[in-house]
Amino acid sequence: MQVGTVIGNVWATRKEDELTGLKFLFVQPEGPNGSPIDTPLVALDRIGAGVGDRVMVTKGSAARLVIKDKDLPIDAVIIGIIDSIDVERG
Amino acid sequence: MQVGTVIGNVWATRKEDELTGLKFLFVQPEGPNGSPIDTPLVALDRIGAGVGDRVMVTKGSAARLVIKDKDLPIDAVIIGIIDSIDVERG
Amino acid sequence: MQVGTVIGNVWATRKEDELTGLKFLFVQPEGPNGSPIDTPLVALDRIGAGVGDRVMVTKGSAARLVIKDKDLPIDAVIIGIIDSIDVERG
Amino acid sequence: MQVGTVIGNVWATRKEDELTGLKFLFVQPEGPNGSPIDTPLVALDRIGAGVGDRVMVTKGSAARLVIKDKDLPIDAVIIGIIDSIDVERG
Amino acid sequence: MQVGTVIGNVWATRKEDELTGLKFLFVQPEGPNGSPIDTPLVALDRIGAGVGDRVMVTKGSAARLVIKDKDLPIDAVIIGIIDSIDVERG
Repeated sequence: MQVGTVIGNVWATRKEDELTGLKFLFVQPEGPNGSPIDTPLVALDRIGAGVGDRVMVTKGSAARLVIKDKDLPIDAVIIGIIDSIDVERG
Repeated sequence: MQVGTVIGNVWATRKEDELTGLKFLFVQPEGPNGSPIDTPLVALDRIGAGVGDRVMVTKGSAARLVIKDKDLPIDAVIIGIIDSIDVERG
Repeated sequence: MQVGTVIGNVWATRKEDELTGLKFLFVQPEGPNGSPIDTPLVALDRIGAGVGDRVMVTKGSAARLVIKDKDLPIDAVIIGIIDSIDVERG
Repeated sequence: MQVGTVIGNVWATRKEDELTGLKFLFVQPEGPNGSPIDTPLVALDRIGAGVGDRVMVTKGSAARLVIKDKDLPIDAVIIGIIDSIDVERG
Repeated sequence: MQVGTVIGNVWATRKEDELTGLKFLFVQPEGPNGSPIDTPLVALDRIGAGVGDRVMVTKGSAARLVIKDKDLPIDAVIIGIIDSIDVERG
């Protein structure tokens, strides 16, 4: 998983049908110390994350598993809002 | 997901059979502010995107899920045409 | 999907059993204007592509879907031979 | 798989339900000689790895296979704690 | 798939149970002309590859398909030992 901070929202009215009603957020991936790494990505949010929250993002086809009964065409999902990171090395 | 702008079309007459009739577009990935990131990729389009549209692209094996009854050998699909992006940070 | 040009062949006699008889080609990924991007990869070819052909390649686990009844351990396949690319921007 | 060293812990109270009780560690990917490569990632740990351990990490959708009866939305898991690496070239 | 040369072995006694008895090798990815590209990765070997062999590696979730009846949490596997590469361009 990747750690990152929510930096914004994405709205798309015209989209694949099964995505209606879902919320998509822009996330800036970060290293353990909070420095940005890589480029921002868009992730599905189902747990109520908001701008400024530090989150954990799952990428790839496992992302769709957060909604069991629908095979959604998504490749990134916010799976947790981070309380704290404790890095001893690195 | 990745955000990007449709920059062109790709035509291939000779192809795997199940891909007949599908439309493929070149998409330039972009950051939230519209600056190009990464190299262009080819994505399946089923929602009527055109050159100049800003779109949301799903990559990887989840891409094939936009067509439920066929297991298509595709790894990128346009899932939405973006109305607006609201980025507060980044 | 990625666009690229076939640059060569790969032969491997000793291999996983289910791969016997399959043809593998080296493909140099390219941007829409034909400039090389990224490093060459090896892709399965089932549609008769040859050196010099410009092709469309699917990567990841969706690649194995070109052969429905066998779950092949492959991660890249040529899905089309490109007739033309029309890029208006980029 | 990637080799890396565990450098810390990640805590997230608010998360997707099926992730409750699971342990997530920050891992710094490394080359065979121990030099850091790429940026740190977060991986599920089920085998008792701790900070300083050198581990083997599986990424992508295969990561969820460590827990057979649940389709977890995770994309990285520690699959082994490394005893030794013997590199003759590179 | 990626081409690379086997550069070493990885041993891990403490690991996920279903991985017991499997052999893992370090592989340095290479371009068609043998120059190293990217960083080394660890791949499962079932076909008897050894240090110095040039091999073809499948990455991602398709890698687990080499062992049909077990859903292994692996993301890279050696699928062939290369006899020769014939590159005309690139």
